[in-house]
Amino acid sequence: MELIEGLYTRRSVRQFTGQPVERELLLEIIKAGTWAPSGLNNQPWRFAIVQDAAVRANLAKLTKYHFVIEGAPACIAVFIDKSLMYHDTKDHQAMGACIQNMLLAAHALGLGAVWLGEILKNAEAVRALLGLPEQMELMAVVALGHPAGKSHTSTRKDLADVLLKEL
Amino acid sequence: MELIEGLYTRRSVRQFTGQPVERELLLEIIKAGTWAPSGLNNQPWRFAIVQDAAVRANLAKLTKYHFVIEGAPACIAVFIDKSLMYHDTKDHQAMGACIQNMLLAAHALGLGAVWLGEILKNAEAVRALLGLPEQMELMAVVALGHPAGKSHTSTRKDLADVLLKEL
Repeated sequence: MELIEGLYTRRSVRQFTGQPVERELLLEIIKAGTWAPSGLNNQPWRFAIVQDAAVRANLAKLTKYHFVIEGAPACIAVFIDKSLMYHDTKDHQAMGACIQNMLLAAHALGLGAVWLGEILKNAEAVRALLGLPEQMELMAVVALGHPAGKSHTSTRKDLADVLLKEL
Repeated sequence: MELIEGLYTRRSVRQFTGQPVERELLLEIIKAGTWAPSGLNNQPWRFAIVQDAAVRANLAKLTKYHFVIEGAPACIAVFIDKSLMYHDTKDHQAMGACIQNMLLAAHALGLGAVWLGEILKNAEAVRALLGLPEQMELMAVVALGHPAGKSHTSTRKDLADVLLKEL
């Protein structure tokens, strides 16, 4: 897949076939995430892969979008290591760049994925469920699988509405 | 350029030829940024293109990396419209996803680019210099041009150092 084409054709995918996601693909997606830029190259991102059905069932209970996690054969929970942070805004931006790389890699690999943010309301419960230390703060859950059904359309504002000035 | 390849070969580029960047390429880069995902699809990103030499000279004074802006034929200042925000962390992540899309698009288009964050210490001065309203908060400046010199190497932690758990 061409890069520019991929930027424009990536969509949130929330419905998946039952087919498991190969571990190698999950590792490739995480590796792609780590090649995002970060301030001072501090690479604050950390990851947990969740495929176990019982753990996914409990994870699903922590978001109102439980059906997405229930139907996704794999989730990658994305954390920030608070001990590595140096600037809240820039570190959170770096996490966004990392997650975007992951979504793009999933798209290029023929998988479907969706960035779940609503679950951050239960960040502490997710961390405890996964048995991770307190310095790890949940940043997002990426639900993944082989896409089922049609991909949804999406829209963006026109350039004229977001380009404030040309100097 | 293949998407996966692009994720791994993008590097920060800080040295540029004097050749101006075609306006169509700058608009393509901004458009690519707008196709990032955002929470509630709120699309909080806004952009200002700076190519004017005098404005760039004043912009350069606001960062210790002044030589990058002085040597870059184009900059895109990336703002968040505070009136559209709903969750600081998620909105800043969306901005990071947007900026990453921009960097990837620049890379795919054969341009070099670097994400400048240090200039955020003078965010208000940048906003005033560009004559933008107070609701616009600077998130980054992306310096752009046709790359000069060799691209730098970069390193990332091994997967084993960032993958906390597999369940």
